[in-house]
Amino acid sequence: MINIAVLGYGTIGSGVVEVIDTNGESIAERAGDEINVKYVLDLRDFPGSPVENKIVHDYDVILNDPDIKVVVEVMGGVEPAHTFVKNALLKGKSVATSNKALVAKHGAELLQVAKDNGANFLFEASVGGGIPIIRPLYSSFTADKILEITGILNGTTNYMLTKMANQGLEFDDVLKQAQDLGYAEKDPTADVGGFDACRKIAILTSLMCGKQVDFEDIYTEGITDISAVDFKYAKVINKSIKLFATTRQLETGSPQGSGIVSMVSPVLIGPEHPLFAVNDVFNAVFVKGNVLGDTMLYGSGAGKLPTASAVVSDVIDLIKHFKSNIKMGWSPDKLTLLDRKMIEHGYFVRVKGTIGERIEAVEKAFGKVIFIEAPGVEGEFAFITSNMPETDYDKRIADIPDVIKMIRIEEHGR
Amino acid sequence: MINIAVLGYGTIGSGVVEVIDTNGESIAERAGDEINVKYVLDLRDFPGSPVENKIVHDYDVILNDPDIKVVVEVMGGVEPAHTFVKNALLKGKSVATSNKALVAKHGAELLQVAKDNGANFLFEASVGGGIPIIRPLYSSFTADKILEITGILNGTTNYMLTKMANQGLEFDDVLKQAQDLGYAEKDPTADVGGFDACRKIAILTSLMCGKQVDFEDIYTEGITDISAVDFKYAKVINKSIKLFATTRQLETGSPQGSGIVSMVSPVLIGPEHPLFAVNDVFNAVFVKGNVLGDTMLYGSGAGKLPTASAVVSDVIDLIKHFKSNIKMGWSPDKLTLLDRKMIEHGYFVRVKGTIGERIEAVEKAFGKVIFIEAPGVEGEFAFITSNMPETDYDKRIADIPDVIKMIRIEEHGR
Repeated sequence: MINIAVLGYGTIGSGVVEVIDTNGESIAERAGDEINVKYVLDLRDFPGSPVENKIVHDYDVILNDPDIKVVVEVMGGVEPAHTFVKNALLKGKSVATSNKALVAKHGAELLQVAKDNGANFLFEASVGGGIPIIRPLYSSFTADKILEITGILNGTTNYMLTKMANQGLEFDDVLKQAQDLGYAEKDPTADVGGFDACRKIAILTSLMCGKQVDFEDIYTEGITDISAVDFKYAKVINKSIKLFATTRQLETGSPQGSGIVSMVSPVLIGPEHPLFAVNDVFNAVFVKGNVLGDTMLYGSGAGKLPTASAVVSDVIDLIKHFKSNIKMGWSPDKLTLLDRKMIEHGYFVRVKGTIGERIEAVEKAFGKVIFIEAPGVEGEFAFITSNMPETDYDKRIADIPDVIKMIRIEEHGR
Repeated sequence: MINIAVLGYGTIGSGVVEVIDTNGESIAERAGDEINVKYVLDLRDFPGSPVENKIVHDYDVILNDPDIKVVVEVMGGVEPAHTFVKNALLKGKSVATSNKALVAKHGAELLQVAKDNGANFLFEASVGGGIPIIRPLYSSFTADKILEITGILNGTTNYMLTKMANQGLEFDDVLKQAQDLGYAEKDPTADVGGFDACRKIAILTSLMCGKQVDFEDIYTEGITDISAVDFKYAKVINKSIKLFATTRQLETGSPQGSGIVSMVSPVLIGPEHPLFAVNDVFNAVFVKGNVLGDTMLYGSGAGKLPTASAVVSDVIDLIKHFKSNIKMGWSPDKLTLLDRKMIEHGYFVRVKGTIGERIEAVEKAFGKVIFIEAPGVEGEFAFITSNMPETDYDKRIADIPDVIKMIRIEEHGR
C-alpha cells in the first residue's frame, strides 16, 4: 500500500480523493499497488466528510511521516505551496501538483531539487486540466523540434467569448453570467486579464525550449476590451475571436531573427484553424513539430474531476518511477524571449468615421487593405491589413486618426 | 552512443533515418545519448543513399551484434516481422514498431517476451501515425475507466469521404484520385474495406481493457457502399459521413448488459460531434473517461515523417527505460466482446418509392420517424428512426419492402 497526503481539500483536493475512491481498483492495478490517502492537510475540519479522520492542520505531521511517499499539492498560490513542496522533495517524497502559479515560478528549481533527492516532481494538471499535454511534451514529441505551441488555455474566457459570439452579448453581461454559473471568480482579473493563460504558456514554453521562461516576460493582453461590436465584424468575415497563448520558434534565417517569441492576446481566426471550433469551457493545445507536423489535443481544461484525473495519473506515474528520474529537460537557465513585435500578423482595425473620409489616409499608410462594414454598426468602419511585423504596424497606424482598436489576425498555415 | 538497427528501408524506414539525421542533437539530449543507425535491413541495396554502407541482407548480423540495443521494425506484415521482433526481444534487445498488423495479432505475446527478457516493446506509430495515443492510454489516462474510444483511424478513407462530401463525386472517382495522389494503394481493400481501421481499434481496445481483443472478432464494414446520393441526404440533415472505429464499455446495469462492444462502420454524425470537422487525411481519436470526461487527440495519421517521428519518440523512450519495464497492462487473456447489435443507434434508411406509398409500412414498423427527401434524388426517399439496438432494427426493417441501404447515426453525448 502506498500512502499519500493531499495538501488542500478544496475543489481539486476533494476531486483527487473522489477519483481514488471511485477507480481505486483499476488505479491499483496500473500503479502496481493500492493507493491510500493517509492525510489531508487543510486549515478547516470536514466533519461528516469521507476525510473527517484524515484531516491534519500541521504540515510537519506529513513531512515527518516516513510512510508518506507521495505528496499531492492542490492548494494553489505560490506560498506556502512552494515551501511545502520543496520540503517534501528534500525529504525524498515525490510530488504531484495542479498549481500553475507554483510551476511557472519555481518549476525548474523544484525539478532540480527532486532529482537531487531521488524524487520526482510532476504537474500534468497545471496546464489544460484533463488534457494530456505536459507528459506528451516530454515523452511523446521528443523526436521533434517544436516550432509552435498555441493554446486556448483558459476555460472562463473561452466560455465568455463563445457566449458573446453566439448571443451578441456585451462583455459585462457574459461576465456576470459566468460568475453566476461559477465559471468565473468574483475577482475575474486572473482569467479575463490573460494572466492565467500567461502562466500556462510560460510552463509549456519552458518545456518546449528546455530553459526557464519567466511569465513576467510574456506580453499579455486579456479580453476585457472585446465588445459585441467586434463580434459583429467577426461574423461578416466568418472569423471567431479567441484568447490565444502562443509561442513560436523563429528559425535561423527567418527575417525576424532566430529565437522564441511568446504572447497572450485575443486573435481573430478563421474556420481553417484547428482551434476555430473549440468552444465553451473546453481547452485545446495545438502543437507543430518540424517532423510531426500539426497535432491538436482537446478536452476539459478545468473542472473538479478532469483536473483530479490528471493529478491522479501523475501520482500513478510517480509510483511507477520511485527508483528512476523522470527527465523533463527544463533547466534553470533563463531564456530571453525575442521581441514579440517581430511576429507577423494581419491586423483588424476599427476606425471612427466613414470609409470615404479615411480611404486616402488608410491606403497611404497600409497600401491595399480590405474594408469592412458591419450591419447595425454606425459611425465607424474597419479594415484588414496584409501581414507585417507589429513594429511595422505601429509605425503605419500612427498616421491614421480616430483608431478605435486593433485585433491581431492569426492565419493557420501561413 | 546507442546503436540501433532499422528493419525495412521503405517509406517509414527512410523517414526514421531522416528524422534521426535532422534532429540528432535534440534527440541525443532527450535520450541522454547519441543515436546511431548501425544497420538497415533490406532485401534491396541503396547505392548512393545515406544508408548505402549500412545495408545488410541477413538479419542474423543484427541479431548477433551485442552492440545493437534497439531494433526498429518498419517492414510491415506479420511475417517475417513477428519472428524478427521476437528473436530480438529474446536477446534482450528492445523493439519499436509501426506495424499494426503485427501488434494487433501478437502484441500481448511480444510485450510478455519483452518483459521476460529485460527488454521493452513499444508501438506508438502503429495507430494514428504521429498522434500520441498509445502512450497516453498507458501513461496519461491511468486514473480513469475508459468508457469509449472512437477514432477516425484511416487517412485514405477519410480523404475519400471528405472529397465525396465536398465535390459530390462517386466512390470510384475519388478512389482513382486517391490512388493517383498516392493516398490509396493499388489494391485498396485494406483501407476501403475497413480492415486497417479494424486492426487499429483492436490495439486500442486491448490497451483500454487490458486483455487481448482479436481483430477478427470486431464487426467491420467499409465505405465501398457509400455513394454520392448518401451525401446528398447527409447535406439536407447537416451531417457528415465518417468511417468510425469505435469501442464502448457498457456499464453494469445498462439494459444491454455489461461488457465491451467494438465495431468499424460508416456513420452519420452532426456538427456537435468532436470528430465532425476531422477532414482530409487527418486522423483523430476521441476518448471518454469516467472522471476525465471527453478528450480528443488530432493529427497526421500517416505519412513518412509524422509516423517516423512517433517511431523515434519510442526509440528515445526505450533508451530511457533500458533498466525498467514499461507496463502497458495488456495481458494475453482473451476478451470476448458483447454482440455489437446491442449498441443503440438511430438509423438512416433509404427506400425505393415515395413517402406516400410507404408511410404506413414505415410507421407501422418504426412508429414516428423523420422523413427526408433530397434535391436531385428521384424514385426514393429516406427516413431516420429513433434510437434502438440493432437487433430491434433488424426485426422492424424486415417488414419494409425495397430498402436500398441503412447507415447508422452516431449522436454525441447520448
